[in-house]
Amino acid sequence: MSTWADWLAAQRTAREAAGLQRVLRPRAADDDLIDLANNDYLGLGGHPAVRRSAADAALRWGAGAGASRLVTGTTTLHAELERELAGFTGREAALVFSTGYHANLSAVTALADRDTLIVSDAHVHASLIDAARLSRAAIRVVAHNDVAAVRAELAAAGGRRALVLTESVFSVLGDTAPLVELTEVCAARDALLVVDEAHGLGVLGDGGRGVLHRLGLHDHPHVVMTATLSKSLGAMGGAVLGSAALVDHLVNRARPFIFDTALAPAAAAGALAALRVLRGAPDLPARIHERGAELAGRLGVPRSAGAVLSVPMPSPRRAVAAQAEALAAGVRVGCFRPPSVPDGISRLRITTHVGLDEARWARAIEVLARVIADRAEPAPWGARGGQITGYQQ
Amino acid sequence: MSTWADWLAAQRTAREAAGLQRVLRPRAADDDLIDLANNDYLGLGGHPAVRRSAADAALRWGAGAGASRLVTGTTTLHAELERELAGFTGREAALVFSTGYHANLSAVTALADRDTLIVSDAHVHASLIDAARLSRAAIRVVAHNDVAAVRAELAAAGGRRALVLTESVFSVLGDTAPLVELTEVCAARDALLVVDEAHGLGVLGDGGRGVLHRLGLHDHPHVVMTATLSKSLGAMGGAVLGSAALVDHLVNRARPFIFDTALAPAAAAGALAALRVLRGAPDLPARIHERGAELAGRLGVPRSAGAVLSVPMPSPRRAVAAQAEALAAGVRVGCFRPPSVPDGISRLRITTHVGLDEARWARAIEVLARVIADRAEPAPWGARGGQITGYQQ
Ligand SMILES: Cc1ncc(COP(=O)(O)O)c(C=O)c1O
Ligand SMILES: Cc1ncc(COP(=O)(O)O)c(C=O)c1O
Repeated sequence: MSTWADWLAAQRTAREAAGLQRVLRPRAADDDLIDLANNDYLGLGGHPAVRRSAADAALRWGAGAGASRLVTGTTTLHAELERELAGFTGREAALVFSTGYHANLSAVTALADRDTLIVSDAHVHASLIDAARLSRAAIRVVAHNDVAAVRAELAAAGGRRALVLTESVFSVLGDTAPLVELTEVCAARDALLVVDEAHGLGVLGDGGRGVLHRLGLHDHPHVVMTATLSKSLGAMGGAVLGSAALVDHLVNRARPFIFDTALAPAAAAGALAALRVLRGAPDLPARIHERGAELAGRLGVPRSAGAVLSVPMPSPRRAVAAQAEALAAGVRVGCFRPPSVPDGISRLRITTHVGLDEARWARAIEVLARVIADRAEPAPWGARGGQITGYQQ
Repeated sequence: MSTWADWLAAQRTAREAAGLQRVLRPRAADDDLIDLANNDYLGLGGHPAVRRSAADAALRWGAGAGASRLVTGTTTLHAELERELAGFTGREAALVFSTGYHANLSAVTALADRDTLIVSDAHVHASLIDAARLSRAAIRVVAHNDVAAVRAELAAAGGRRALVLTESVFSVLGDTAPLVELTEVCAARDALLVVDEAHGLGVLGDGGRGVLHRLGLHDHPHVVMTATLSKSLGAMGGAVLGSAALVDHLVNRARPFIFDTALAPAAAAGALAALRVLRGAPDLPARIHERGAELAGRLGVPRSAGAVLSVPMPSPRRAVAAQAEALAAGVRVGCFRPPSVPDGISRLRITTHVGLDEARWARAIEVLARVIADRAEPAPWGARGGQITGYQQ
């Protein structure tokens, strides 16, 4: 055995002892489960017009874009998608990336360097955490949604350029950030607020334009928006939205943009078609909240601000058991365990879907209410929720 | 004006003064240019069977995978692709990612931590550089292809786990790494050699199985292979190939795998179809080298080991002018300028394509020979080529 083989084996043994070993379970195209684990909240990824557009793009452009956006990978399709994303969210410009992860890595690393201060909410997504680390900026992690702490850190920035990182709707707990207050604090100190709308776009705001749009912050000069095309738009890819000067800067400086093959035409076309379906159905996002309220009520947990309902469970093993029980009854839900939730509180993660017909939705609620009712211990909401931080990884 | 607006404007002014400002130029689906800038060397991205498979997958599965591979994003399509990639390259197992960038970030960050030593070739791709930085390991950058320097660094590792980073065919200069010697050095010191085969897969080795396979290193326990699905396979995505224990570790620990939506089904299906076409046409990769030799001969530059021909130019502006001249004559080529080539030597980057018919190929050579002949100053090959390093960024 080599050092490396030993090390891999020891890591696996430790995971197994902690009940944290995960395996991939491929699903079939026709598995007929009710899937409340995916983030295609509006069902747009499977919408006939969206499937058709993605397929047509593959036939027309081929399976890939062939090279970086800066070389020959940018197609008129990417440009069209960027124009419509910017128009929809009310920003001056947009830039599309291969993944939401690339979008966050790019926004942060192209703006921040050793001379920058990054103030980050403790609950931000792994991609923002990795982005902050990669930037080599000084990083200050503040307690979740703590505006006063952000203000204090910015006051101590001492003339450095400063970036503040947050999400509009948080991906684990499903709560929202105090964006109006954070924007005020950032504007007062001339800091830039980077808001990840991965779970806000298509879910909140007028017709799904996102939380920044709802709050009138969409054209604020101190706010940068990032988003994914892989959740409510049902495709793949990411975007950064802001001023034309910002986009120009990213095109020239963002390494995960410059040194990466462009998003495949089929994914770009799928996202564009989904955006158009959404624009033509402005009442669709509101249905998420109706169904979400119904689900939370039946499960006896607090409502979520977005489409993600987080249900704390007593242990990782109990969470996995509940997930398996739901699956056996035909309903797939997600399960968050360490390292995704480093506070040790494992959770079921259930997403609200408006693409399901009434019968399947009712069936899902019934199954979940039964599985959740089996949960023995009281739920530890609030008590330790504020401790979740991927920065501990 | 805010601090940030001022800063963005100043950065742009500096780029413009240096002749380094870049803009995106969208191409149309039917632009009819001869494209020697993309990395779809075998023309598989546009192969009828590949287009059709990608389109069928979009119709069957929808535009996106809906969630992370660990949640519900893994489909039977991903599993099939992984099985066939591993089989083709002769590795025990494979794991597919959204991009080649994600594959490199994942392999390095899941294996290396603060207790690890990373020894990196100075010419590796931006994604490996970012991966090394993100891992927080101690990083030692050694001169390009300098085996003795790698040996010396490993000798000084002092019991730390050690990773060595290289590429099989380098993306800028198109040369190869001394993989047999590097593997010996790594095995002797129990270090792991991570080899990025982005430009080797589909180009070199028996039927395009890559350089590791050609050298009989494909099942070596001290060698990890990474690859992209976005170049010779003409689609999008990346892969890490190695032992089943390695893949299991990545599934459980690689943040850019765990916290990223799975590769879209259309891209996975496109890559899988391309792999099957390649398997059925084992003589295809050899044609790259025939055409590459012809091209290098006509342009009077050294031959490339792979499909990328690098042509040094006297200045960034001259490189851009030559590129524009070729474009005006119907031939698109790439152009590397700082920051992609921090040694200051700008280059035309011309890829050899076997998908073009004889007439278009002949036309391309004729145009390029004319454009390159205009190059006034002598080419600085060799002299400073060894200085290229993205680590200076
Ligand atoms: C808040 C947040 N940001 C970014 C991402 C990354 O987006 P993508 O999956 O498109 O890489 C995700 C989820 O995957 C997310 O939940
Ligand atoms: C050597 C090398 N590694 C990795 C990558 C990244 O692959 P991808 O474009 O699929 O992200 C590239 C090119 O883009 C490359 O040239």
